[in-house]
Amino acid sequence: MSGGIDSTLTTILAVEALGSDRVLGLGLPWTKTDGFHQTEAQTMADGLGIEFHEIPLQPILEVFEDIVTPTIPTIETNDRSDSIGNVVARLRMVCTYYAANAQSRLVCGTANRSELLLGYFTKYGDGGADLYPLGDLYKTEVRALASHIGLPRRIINKAPTAGLRPGQTDAEDLGATYRIIDPLLQRIVDRGERVRTAANALNVDMNTAERIASLFIETVHKRTVPPSPGISTPWGNRSSYPTQQPEEERYLYEEQ
Amino acid sequence: MSGGIDSTLTTILAVEALGSDRVLGLGLPWTKTDGFHQTEAQTMADGLGIEFHEIPLQPILEVFEDIVTPTIPTIETNDRSDSIGNVVARLRMVCTYYAANAQSRLVCGTANRSELLLGYFTKYGDGGADLYPLGDLYKTEVRALASHIGLPRRIINKAPTAGLRPGQTDAEDLGATYRIIDPLLQRIVDRGERVRTAANALNVDMNTAERIASLFIETVHKRTVPPSPGISTPWGNRSSYPTQQPEEERYLYEEQ
Repeated sequence: MSGGIDSTLTTILAVEALGSDRVLGLGLPWTKTDGFHQTEAQTMADGLGIEFHEIPLQPILEVFEDIVTPTIPTIETNDRSDSIGNVVARLRMVCTYYAANAQSRLVCGTANRSELLLGYFTKYGDGGADLYPLGDLYKTEVRALASHIGLPRRIINKAPTAGLRPGQTDAEDLGATYRIIDPLLQRIVDRGERVRTAANALNVDMNTAERIASLFIETVHKRTVPPSPGISTPWGNRSSYPTQQPEEERYLYEEQ
Repeated sequence: MSGGIDSTLTTILAVEALGSDRVLGLGLPWTKTDGFHQTEAQTMADGLGIEFHEIPLQPILEVFEDIVTPTIPTIETNDRSDSIGNVVARLRMVCTYYAANAQSRLVCGTANRSELLLGYFTKYGDGGADLYPLGDLYKTEVRALASHIGLPRRIINKAPTAGLRPGQTDAEDLGATYRIIDPLLQRIVDRGERVRTAANALNVDMNTAERIASLFIETVHKRTVPPSPGISTPWGNRSSYPTQQPEEERYLYEEQ
């Protein structure tokens, strides 16, 4: 819970589904500029009547910087602060899964469909969750739902940020706002339109449309399980091991 | 690199594919009893001519235990040492991905097909990788390949362990050795045989066969991306967003 729209709405949905006594909220701030709003998160947790704990990550990060980063120098072309931002996102996952393991809980990810399709999340970091309650809603739809259930305007209208760099905003990272991005993704991904067709229909310049489409394509590795070589056998290609629940249940229950 | 068969073989394959100058090995020991064999890992890295660093995780874990675990008590039914074992596996992932981010590398996971199908790995921990070079080989096949390329017998014959508890072995955790497990999985998963048919054909008792089949079924969440609600639109069900590379490339390049 950062105090932002996605984590607030995810928490509200979890409480609605499970009851306030079965939901644990964690505030996992890093720096003063990471977009975490302590009062907002605490007030929302209190209002919902859920257990809430704040755990500052700075002490863990300091040890990490003492013992890991000196051993592994950053190459010239890369930005060290990006790598550290990803470390923080992954340390948050370590904390949420510790709570899940210690108390038999599931981890609710806060990713929305815009972020998932653009790969705008840290792999095995904030992307590391057991389910994404908002995962089918574009960011603009997340705002509409938040507005519908009466979330305060100050939360809904806050500029979206991943909070991994000071002053970072989604719009700057992605080169467009979600008002531009979401209709593009809906046409290109959901409806299968060509990039040029979508750009023309929405009156968006081709550079923007192609950049958004490229983000979608280049981040497929964040939306799939890691690949294996693909060894073939007389019974089919192994790397496509069955992954769907219904298919898997068949093996155990078919004969009963 | 733990000095065990899976990580050693994965490193050898990476060096064969990319050359020794493009492979970085990390040794990430935790306790004296975690199965990490410093000399074995270092000797192998030297023999292959790759860069290798050892980073002990104990200092990070100590801070984690200072600031996270006191806030989140373990419930009675759960074993705190299991949760900590998963924390260690996830901290290893944080380290490997830091190296990947800082130096533009990919993370080679060491999971084999037996582990993947049984879900015998930590979600977003050792399971967190960009590819699984051994992911299509059952553990018994990993041994055969290791033997074929001449890995020392002491590495091949060491009792497999996840190294998350003192004295832990795969065989004890899983209730059977891979000599029993692998043929069961091949028949049940690869060939689609019923559990009873496979158990009879292999002369394995039904309890063991059903436990192995259950592990396969109950761990599906470790082999898939996290689910979303599944909102339907006139253009199909959203939660099944396209995830395959060829399908996704179509959006950008079809018109050219």
